[in-house]
Amino acid sequence: MTYRAINLSEKLGKFSDLWAPKIVAEMNDYEFKLVKFSGDFVWHDHKDTDEVFIVLFGNMEIEFRDGLVQLAAGEMYVIKKGTEHRTRAASECHALLVEPRGVTNTGDAGGDLTAAKDVWV
Amino acid sequence: MTYRAINLSEKLGKFSDLWAPKIVAEMNDYEFKLVKFSGDFVWHDHKDTDEVFIVLFGNMEIEFRDGLVQLAAGEMYVIKKGTEHRTRAASECHALLVEPRGVTNTGDAGGDLTAAKDVWV
Repeated sequence: MTYRAINLSEKLGKFSDLWAPKIVAEMNDYEFKLVKFSGDFVWHDHKDTDEVFIVLFGNMEIEFRDGLVQLAAGEMYVIKKGTEHRTRAASECHALLVEPRGVTNTGDAGGDLTAAKDVWV
Repeated sequence: MTYRAINLSEKLGKFSDLWAPKIVAEMNDYEFKLVKFSGDFVWHDHKDTDEVFIVLFGNMEIEFRDGLVQLAAGEMYVIKKGTEHRTRAASECHALLVEPRGVTNTGDAGGDLTAAKDVWV
């Protein structure tokens, strides 16, 4: 039997909406999600979990209350739980997120950019 | 303050030993580890956890008792817990692994390829 790998470029080709993470894999109780985004997100934090960004295409910044980190394709960063942050990208950026199942993308901040959960691609 | 992203290529440039995973990041109680390998690993499983491979360079196969999956750079796969498997690569392959802290690379199989834990790069 031949099993099939998850091809991240192929998955990225299947959607174009921004700030709307799509699940590509589950590992234990964690989800791996692809997301495309451009512009500024909202300030928020995740009280109960760290969050991982792995940039696949483009460039992004994660702004913190006391500074920022810049990421290019091939770079990753772990946002520690409870740390307020805001992601942004001057032009479209694609990233792989890793976080526990069921995390809300905007934390408790809410607003228009709050995305549906459990959407697979 | 400027924080620093984890550059995966830069980290890969810092070691050359094979089958010896190196931690680059921690997220909650999970580790992200870079590994270089070539040839065949040993049959083993992880009784308590799934395991993720994200291929960064080259090509690899994961052989199962009932089949196999082929992965190229930009592809990922989740090996479900308790599933016997053997990784292999015809020529050198580089991957990012995700698994809970403290997992032994050879499971209970032991042998010469059992790697030290808690090694960072």
